[in-house]
Amino acid sequence: MENFEFINPTRILFGKNSEEKVGEQVALHSKTILLHYGGGSIKASGLFDRVTASLKKAGVQWVELGGVQPNPRLSLVHEGVKLCKEHKLGLILAVGGGSVIDSAKAIAMGAVIEGDVWDFYLGKGEPVAALPIGTVLTIPAAGSEASTGTVITNEEGWLKRAVNSELIYPRFSILNPELAFSLPKFQVACGVTDIMAHLLERYFTNVQHVELTDRLIEATMKTLISQAPLVLQNPKDYDAWSEIMWAGTVAHNNLLNTGRVGDWASHEIEHEISGIYDIAHGAGLAVVFPAWMKYVWKHDVNRFVQWSVRVWNVEMDVFNPEAVAQAGIERMEAFFQSMGLVTRLSEMDIPADRIDEMAAKCTKSGKRSFGSFVKLGYEDVRKILNLAA
Amino acid sequence: MENFEFINPTRILFGKNSEEKVGEQVALHSKTILLHYGGGSIKASGLFDRVTASLKKAGVQWVELGGVQPNPRLSLVHEGVKLCKEHKLGLILAVGGGSVIDSAKAIAMGAVIEGDVWDFYLGKGEPVAALPIGTVLTIPAAGSEASTGTVITNEEGWLKRAVNSELIYPRFSILNPELAFSLPKFQVACGVTDIMAHLLERYFTNVQHVELTDRLIEATMKTLISQAPLVLQNPKDYDAWSEIMWAGTVAHNNLLNTGRVGDWASHEIEHEISGIYDIAHGAGLAVVFPAWMKYVWKHDVNRFVQWSVRVWNVEMDVFNPEAVAQAGIERMEAFFQSMGLVTRLSEMDIPADRIDEMAAKCTKSGKRSFGSFVKLGYEDVRKILNLAA
Repeated sequence: MENFEFINPTRILFGKNSEEKVGEQVALHSKTILLHYGGGSIKASGLFDRVTASLKKAGVQWVELGGVQPNPRLSLVHEGVKLCKEHKLGLILAVGGGSVIDSAKAIAMGAVIEGDVWDFYLGKGEPVAALPIGTVLTIPAAGSEASTGTVITNEEGWLKRAVNSELIYPRFSILNPELAFSLPKFQVACGVTDIMAHLLERYFTNVQHVELTDRLIEATMKTLISQAPLVLQNPKDYDAWSEIMWAGTVAHNNLLNTGRVGDWASHEIEHEISGIYDIAHGAGLAVVFPAWMKYVWKHDVNRFVQWSVRVWNVEMDVFNPEAVAQAGIERMEAFFQSMGLVTRLSEMDIPADRIDEMAAKCTKSGKRSFGSFVKLGYEDVRKILNLAA
Repeated sequence: MENFEFINPTRILFGKNSEEKVGEQVALHSKTILLHYGGGSIKASGLFDRVTASLKKAGVQWVELGGVQPNPRLSLVHEGVKLCKEHKLGLILAVGGGSVIDSAKAIAMGAVIEGDVWDFYLGKGEPVAALPIGTVLTIPAAGSEASTGTVITNEEGWLKRAVNSELIYPRFSILNPELAFSLPKFQVACGVTDIMAHLLERYFTNVQHVELTDRLIEATMKTLISQAPLVLQNPKDYDAWSEIMWAGTVAHNNLLNTGRVGDWASHEIEHEISGIYDIAHGAGLAVVFPAWMKYVWKHDVNRFVQWSVRVWNVEMDVFNPEAVAQAGIERMEAFFQSMGLVTRLSEMDIPADRIDEMAAKCTKSGKRSFGSFVKLGYEDVRKILNLAA
């Protein structure tokens, strides 16, 4: 295990009707806020009315900014920053999924500086302050409700970049599994895949002696594998949704990577695909992850064997560990497919002749290597994308 | 899963030499502090010197209060409160195990009120403020380094009582597994048992659909079971100590009981034993827990079967689940014994003729029932203690 520092101060309010507490939570920090959301679904579902009723009851006034899209855009972040400065708003309340929360985090950092918040995403300087953020989560997936991360897409150049900072841990996040009942099956599948990816990215590490976190990650994966089919079959299965929603937070709240170094290469490769094609992040991961594994498993057969046996219930075969390792990868790919996702670029109508371009973008034309479990350069990414073709 | 609220804002600094960061962490909160510890072991080991060197470097001044004993006493808490008020101290730094930290938490609550902090332990009123607390942990066991709890013994009447409050989450806790290298084997065994008990108390619940937290608890138990023999064999096994120390925090930091209601009856029964006999808490738990299980397992055979199969690797026998359930209990008792602990009151020289007295104390002469998985009254506690005789 490596030395580590860990903190996660986000207050979680979990369960039925928990959104009724949003007003009192917000009022602990500010009485004038930015209410940030995506499309019209929260208005159609009545959630918007319940949230604003709670805000009113707590004496909180708000300025609205809707319109967050999947792969949230920098231009809307700039609008939000402007509103916060104009109206001297004291908190950003994100009502939605990971995109809305990530957008809120960007606004929270941008609202307290003179310059452009995009600089932080380019690695120019680090934030030293941010407005407080609160969330009402509607989609279990990104884990942004209790994470340090935000990913924003700059439409100029279609660049997708991330910032991580303790300053943007939400002060509170409200998780009511009932809010996920109305999600389309495709979005459910993408969300589960995103959560699974967060676990895989932590699991495949070169750090030795990480017994506890290995087992905690495996526990969370097994929960996803057992519960996802239940909500796909019955979208109103509250119990199964509770497990998935809480697993989504636990997967990404930094506890499961304590003392270990993960590998985020698959996420980075996927960002290039969804940056170009604007496809759902989870759908892209279902394509990239099996291919990444098929390319890297020989790097640490034992780790893949442990994962296959413990998580996917592959029977141990001490005489053929390679087959055990590969069987786990096959079962994972079948799991993604069982949720209705495709696992090949061609099935997404992404032609193989774009692969070189994506590999170049991901590696700055071969000038950059990335990944930790296995370092990847231009040729590696090309091969992985070809395995996904 | 039940509705829940969860927060844990304690910053963890984990790993080799992490105690060197104590000064800078303390200085974020106060420059004049109470330095609280137990016996002379931290001075003999050089830890005291390293901690105070770090404090000096950060410009922090301290008042010392040593002498915390296992089952920490109210009289010393009163001394600490007096020192904090006299010298206007702004933080309590606990250097030691759970007893020192629990004592520090009591002082932190007492230092900001006019009245007696013991009132909170008697359930008279709730704390509304507390001085900040920091810890340098030397014994993985109680989990107090990132918990809301404190247990104090009042020598008048030899009463052992607890308080839980978010206000006493430590602001930071420093966990260096090397500090556990010098623990005597008996104390290691007691610590591991205490951690195991925290997991068992969360695991045995009547709440249905708690898949994720079941699996997270199982993961933590399995880690303990695999790592404890390693440190007993080689007290300087840093890797194994890391797993145990982090497991001890995770077991009790409130994440693993999210959405479920645990059963703390065994802890309460043990408090009466160690209250009277002043034996180590973990040693008492190794006696009480197997007996409690033998008394309650029929209440939910399935839960015991799941635990036996997943945690203790008992082979499933669908034709005889009762045998599977009981085999798990036997394996747990054997695990405690393998660490050198006894599992019977008689082996501790506690005579069976004190059982009625302990059962009476625990239930206020039968006027009180307690426990959640199974409610226990006077007769139940008598029977459990007789199973432990």
